[in-house]
Amino acid sequence: MTIDERARRHFAEELDQLKHRLLTMGGLAEERVRLAVRSLVERDPSMMAQVIAGDADINQFHVEIDDRCFKLLALHQPMAGDLRSIVAAVKINSDLERVGDLAVNIAEAAQRYVTHPPVKPLVDIPRMADLAQTMLHDALDAFVANNVASAQSVLDRDDMLDELKNQVFRELLTYMLGEPRTVEPGIDLILVSRHLERVGDHATNIAEDVIFIVAARDVRHHAGDAS
Amino acid sequence: MTIDERARRHFAEELDQLKHRLLTMGGLAEERVRLAVRSLVERDPSMMAQVIAGDADINQFHVEIDDRCFKLLALHQPMAGDLRSIVAAVKINSDLERVGDLAVNIAEAAQRYVTHPPVKPLVDIPRMADLAQTMLHDALDAFVANNVASAQSVLDRDDMLDELKNQVFRELLTYMLGEPRTVEPGIDLILVSRHLERVGDHATNIAEDVIFIVAARDVRHHAGDAS
Repeated sequence: MTIDERARRHFAEELDQLKHRLLTMGGLAEERVRLAVRSLVERDPSMMAQVIAGDADINQFHVEIDDRCFKLLALHQPMAGDLRSIVAAVKINSDLERVGDLAVNIAEAAQRYVTHPPVKPLVDIPRMADLAQTMLHDALDAFVANNVASAQSVLDRDDMLDELKNQVFRELLTYMLGEPRTVEPGIDLILVSRHLERVGDHATNIAEDVIFIVAARDVRHHAGDAS
Repeated sequence: MTIDERARRHFAEELDQLKHRLLTMGGLAEERVRLAVRSLVERDPSMMAQVIAGDADINQFHVEIDDRCFKLLALHQPMAGDLRSIVAAVKINSDLERVGDLAVNIAEAAQRYVTHPPVKPLVDIPRMADLAQTMLHDALDAFVANNVASAQSVLDRDDMLDELKNQVFRELLTYMLGEPRTVEPGIDLILVSRHLERVGDHATNIAEDVIFIVAARDVRHHAGDAS
């Protein structure tokens, strides 16, 4: 093996490790969203506290992965597809960190929510959480496997999340208009639905990065879309 | 001038151009937030429509700046400080694009808000908008000038924005509990205040990137901070 071959193999290994660290971080972020919503549904304050305290792990991943990206860029000076993958990794890293922040935001809303009697049994919010987590999971799988079809399927699901969010809003509004005591907790549930919508937005960002890497064409900002 | 010197000078010029394009994009993003909040305060539907339609400009900047970053990374293979600046530019570009999206979100909330009578004269929301815009402006100036003190001053103002957001919430809640007809428009004002808080978050992200570039130390995730 020549020195060049050895360097290339080393680079390929490092890039592979980077992708798998992102996947692990993504799993952690998903888990935190799941736990935050579960803490809300089960009205479990210790679970809420656990989500809020656990953000340090995600932040540690964030710093580590940024560092890996820098080293890959600085030491290997990658070109074309590899360069796009690493720049995408920088962005995905930021997206996942924000998902971790959103889990904290959900747990904080849950802490306020449980100081009131429940507004209603929660059905659509757990559905939104499932959908958003699956989107995030599939987007990261698509990144690791360079799978455009799978990334596209993430983009296709964003409308469902939006529809659920609107449904949550309309239903809560009915309660809030009829019963002033549901106004304050109702607002927190609306905020939770917005946080989950944003988890879906981050999944969408990642999916768009994957399509950009693979197809080397920019699907972001398709005609007339403001999101 | 040797070929090396010429290449270095060319790179320095390109990096300078990149920074100034980001500054222009930032000015546009600020202007859109200002216009969105003005459309809300003046209850002007044509201004709201203008904000929503105008997102294409920001998106065009986003694609152009991403492209500039790629070319600088691929053609010049920069090291150390220059590499950090370009990776920061990739992130700042994403932040500014999201600020553009938030201006759209504010204008959309304004469109819903004006279908109801006003809840109250708007005082704190314009103050939040001013503060968030100034933070964004100062963060970008700090990036172009590599000015850590100025970046730090952006971080210091985040608590003020948070305090204003809480004040907006408490005041609106009082109205909403007393008058059911203010519930629906009240929710939109609360959402606007959250969007403005997020503009401030993006300014904070940019300021942290600047400190990272200049001090080459990572101030993100300082002890116990979940944001």
